[in-house]
Parts: sequence; structure tokens; C-alpha cells
Amino acid sequence: MPGELEIISRIRERARKSVDVRIGIGDDAAVIETGGDMDLLACSDLMVEGIHFRTEWSEPRLLGRKSLAVTLSDVAAMGGAPRFAMVSIAITARLAPNFVDELIEGIFGMADEAGVSVIGGDTSSSRDSLFIDTSVIGQCGKGEAVTRSGALAGDRIYVTGTLGASALGLRLLERGLRPGKPGADGVKDRLRLRAMLRHLAPEPRLSFGRAMGEGRLATAMIDISDGLSTDLWHVLEESRVGAVIQGQAIPVDECAAALAEQAGEAALTLALNGGEEYELLFTARAENDDRIVEVANSLGVKVSAIGEITGEEGLRLELGGRIEPLPARGFQHII
Amino acid sequence: MPGELEIISRIRERARKSVDVRIGIGDDAAVIETGGDMDLLACSDLMVEGIHFRTEWSEPRLLGRKSLAVTLSDVAAMGGAPRFAMVSIAITARLAPNFVDELIEGIFGMADEAGVSVIGGDTSSSRDSLFIDTSVIGQCGKGEAVTRSGALAGDRIYVTGTLGASALGLRLLERGLRPGKPGADGVKDRLRLRAMLRHLAPEPRLSFGRAMGEGRLATAMIDISDGLSTDLWHVLEESRVGAVIQGQAIPVDECAAALAEQAGEAALTLALNGGEEYELLFTARAENDDRIVEVANSLGVKVSAIGEITGEEGLRLELGGRIEPLPARGFQHII
Repeated sequence: MPGELEIISRIRERARKSVDVRIGIGDDAAVIETGGDMDLLACSDLMVEGIHFRTEWSEPRLLGRKSLAVTLSDVAAMGGAPRFAMVSIAITARLAPNFVDELIEGIFGMADEAGVSVIGGDTSSSRDSLFIDTSVIGQCGKGEAVTRSGALAGDRIYVTGTLGASALGLRLLERGLRPGKPGADGVKDRLRLRAMLRHLAPEPRLSFGRAMGEGRLATAMIDISDGLSTDLWHVLEESRVGAVIQGQAIPVDECAAALAEQAGEAALTLALNGGEEYELLFTARAENDDRIVEVANSLGVKVSAIGEITGEEGLRLELGGRIEPLPARGFQHII
Repeated sequence: MPGELEIISRIRERARKSVDVRIGIGDDAAVIETGGDMDLLACSDLMVEGIHFRTEWSEPRLLGRKSLAVTLSDVAAMGGAPRFAMVSIAITARLAPNFVDELIEGIFGMADEAGVSVIGGDTSSSRDSLFIDTSVIGQCGKGEAVTRSGALAGDRIYVTGTLGASALGLRLLERGLRPGKPGADGVKDRLRLRAMLRHLAPEPRLSFGRAMGEGRLATAMIDISDGLSTDLWHVLEESRVGAVIQGQAIPVDECAAALAEQAGEAALTLALNGGEEYELLFTARAENDDRIVEVANSLGVKVSAIGEITGEEGLRLELGGRIEPLPARGFQHII
């Protein structure tokens, strides 16, 4: 069976774009020109039981919420506003009677929060696994979409929020911890709960992403779904540039800082390689730094400058006075 | 576990429409006003292994083709033109190495034929079942979308093509027949092959559906995915009208006529209740009959007038001088 990246690469090679498809397969969302003053954005995300989640990890409401949140995040990563969603669900016979109701409630709750109308979808039964595929249609001003390919040498690299918590939360869930089961130690319980909820209920950066698009403040943008190192590699490859990032500038989440070692990982490794963060990673001209900080402050979003785009290709990490190559997902091999 | 209709009804109740959603959940596709002179159409269709298909029934190319064809058919049923598609696929480890390539080739082949650009989607592995969800974005002139709710008393009821072959093909496939395995009897082989291919490779009525929308010729339209009786019931319920259809006017496919009895069914039962036909069922003012016949002839599409919309609610079948109620999917109980 071919791997996911191989399949995507074959699909991408095979796809032909009509003239009104400005960006096709290969970015967070496709960009379609409408002829009017708005461009359309479109994207899908698939969540499969046993691959992306287990039903016993959380209440179904959070699962429904996340299934739409991850797709909304793709629209945010293009600098656009999500508007419409379609949801296809295949459910198994072993689910509890109220499971589907709560799952749907979670999807609609997320849609309401984001100002998105659920306009369609499909339902089916499934023999074995629960499947949820969400498609989102969004919009942005004509030519405003922020792609992965616009990073320029000299741009600063930024990331929203803090990193490492979602990957830590996943490890805790895999070890049998659950959000509803507090233990004996108050502080650690709070941090563990925080980590698990960062994994189970990610908050897409909708307002911030939209502000970057509207203000034309970012040269390239992507959401962190595969991990900072991998997603930065995507930007570098599409933009044909390189980067140096500063290890000490990476905003490691407090729970990763406190609990990573117990989970058998360095906190920085989790922050660099942990996936499913749904924070935004973007690049911008240095002269826009003040405006970016202003937008971040006005929206209450933490933003960290973590490095710089270079003309020389490749991704390097500066840490403790040393600079070393940083492969996608490969940080664990060099620390 | 709630049934599919119950889930859809809950989703439909829960959905709130923003002002630019002219038609939301509950028709073949959603209709979105763009503010310009075109409306957008959007819909999804989900196919799950073991529920909608078995991988051993056909070459993967046909499966890929059908997974997109059924969603394109929904856009045709709104009188629109499909433009863009997104495809989410979850694949299992047991599939042959070239299976995914051929599946993708089938999807792109259908997209090319329909003039549709594949602009995105998602891929995943799956533990047990192959899962294909396709979403299509189409367009039609502002206000031209043909819904299920516009049928008026006195309208004629029409159907494209012939009916009953797909359901017969499904029964043959379930009994172990395959398109690639010819038997001894030439005529029956041709008819059996025809039936199986009508199930495995349905041809969406894209040009005809579009012509009905552009010409504003149909008052209501739906594609036959659940079976003529059930899909006509959908139109009657949404339009708050009734209908009388003539049994002898139903265009029974030649293979259903020849082979239905061997399959333990009456040919007319298959034609009235057999699903997955992807023919168009529509209603039109009687004065448009000439223009409809003209469009059908110019596109080489067979169209049959099968009955009339009545002010009195309910669906009745006239057959052999008797008129009897025709429940959705219920014809087998009264023949």
C-alpha cells in the first residue's frame, strides 16, 4: 500500500487545474477565482477511528468539534474566513445511542462559534470504524490568500500560541489517562488536563489567520498539523528558500515543559515535532513586525518570532551556540 | 444506533442557515448566493466498503469513477454545472499495490469527462474499510437552481433513461457474477453485463440536468439514487403535492425486462424501487413538453413522461386499469 505522502504526490501530479483555480492541491486549501472581488477557499479533512482518534478518549462532543476545527484551521492558514461546511459521517452499530447526537452537537457548536453554516454532507453506516470527513468553503479578498510558497529570504518566521502540548496530550491519552479522571496531584492534574484538551479540543486561530490575510501581513502561512519542523519544511520547499530557527525562541507550552521528561521526551522535541497543534506558522517582512504584534495583542493571541528565512536552502536549528540541520520530524535524532 | 434518515433529520433540524444560503441541507445540493450573477452549488457523497460496494465487484477504476459520478449527479439534479471536486480517501493495508493508482485514475477520468478540477481532499489509512467521500462545488445562474420543492399540481412527471438495470446488476453482483466473467449464453451475457455496468459505472446526466436549469424547464428535479418511488416521494413531500404515475409508462430497462424474473423480482418492481440509477426525475409545466423533447433529442437522452402532479397528496400508481397507493420503496407489497 502506498503511503499517504506518495498518494498525495500522485494525486497532485495527476490534477489539472482549470484557469480559475489559482491554487490547487498542495496548500492548506484550494483558491478559486470567482471573477468578483472575493476568492473562494475549499478544503477537506478526514478523521478515521483507530488512526486519528479513539472513541473512548473523550466525549463525542469534543470529537465532533475537533473534526470541524481542523478543517476551519486550514482556511485560517490561508488568511481567509470559513463560511460553509459539509460533513460526511459513517457510523458503526456499536456506538451508544446518544453518541451520534453529541457528535453532531459538537460539530454544530464549532460551526456556530466560527459563524459557519453547515449546508450538507452525507451519512452512512460503517462495519468497523467511525469516519468523519468535513469540507469547508471559505472566502478571502481577491488575491489575499496566503499560500505556502511566498516566503522570501530575510522574512521573519513566527508562530502563534505555544507548542508541544497536543503531542504530550496524545501520549497521555495513549497511556490511558482521560480528561474526566483526575488523579492525586493538583498541579500535574491541571497540566495533564491542559495537554489532553489541547489534543482533543484544539482552537483554530480563525481571527488571527483572517487578520494576516486581510492586512496582507504574512508572506507565507501554514497551520501546524504535522509538527513545526515538518510544516516549516513544507513552506521552505514550496517557497524554495531555507531557514534558521532559534531553539530558545520556540514557545514551549508549560505542560510540555513540566511533563515531557516523564513522557520520555525532551520538551523542545515535543514542541518542534509534535503534530495537531493547529497553531499558525507564518513568515513576514521584518518591517511588518510592529503591525503583527499589534494585531496579536488586539486579538489576545501570543505570537513568537522564532527565526529567519534564508536564501540558502535547508532548515537549521540554533541551540546552545551550535547550529545543526533540522530534518522534518527528525529532531529526536540529533538532540 | 439511529438510522440514516433519523440522523439526517436531526442534522437538518439543528442547521441554521446564514442569509446567503438559499437552500441548505435536504436537497440534492446546497445553493449559496454569491452576490454575483451565479449561485454556487455544493454537495457530498460518501461510499463505504461493505455498505455501498465490495472491492471485488469491479476494477478499482470503475469504483473511483462512480464515487465522483454520484456526487456530480447531485449537481445535475439541481440544474447546475459541476466545476470543482474534493476527494477524501481512507485506504486499508490489504489493497493491492496498484489499487489506489487505478482508483485515483478512475476519479480523475470522471473529473476530466465532466470538466471538473480536483482541487483538494485528504487521505488516510483505515483499519478495516475503504472509505471514499467526494465533495463537489458547482454553479448555476442566479435563481436557476431546480429544487425538490417546486412541483405544482398539473405538472407532468418525467424520467430520463431506463430504470431497473442498476438494482438488477446489484443482485447479480451479490450472487457472485462479475463483469469480467462471461458465461455460455451470448444474449443473456450481454444483458447481465449491461445490468452490472449500470450499477458499477453509472453515467450522470450532466448535460441534460444543466439544460433543464438553464432553460428553466423543470419545476422540480431529483436524481434517482434511492429508487423512483422513494425519490418521487421526496419531491412530493417537499412540494406538498401528490402524484399519479402510469405503470405502463415507466421505462423499464431491457435487461430488467428480460432477467428480473430469474432474479426473483417483477421487472416493474425493480424499475419503481431500484436505487442507484442516477437518472433524473423531474416535473415540468405541460406547455414545456415540446421544448423538453427537443432538448432530450438534441442531447440524445431518452425522456419519458410517466405521470402527473396532483393537488391531492399521496402517490398513486395506475396499472391495468386500477389505481393503488404507492408507498416509498413499498411497491413489492402491492403488486
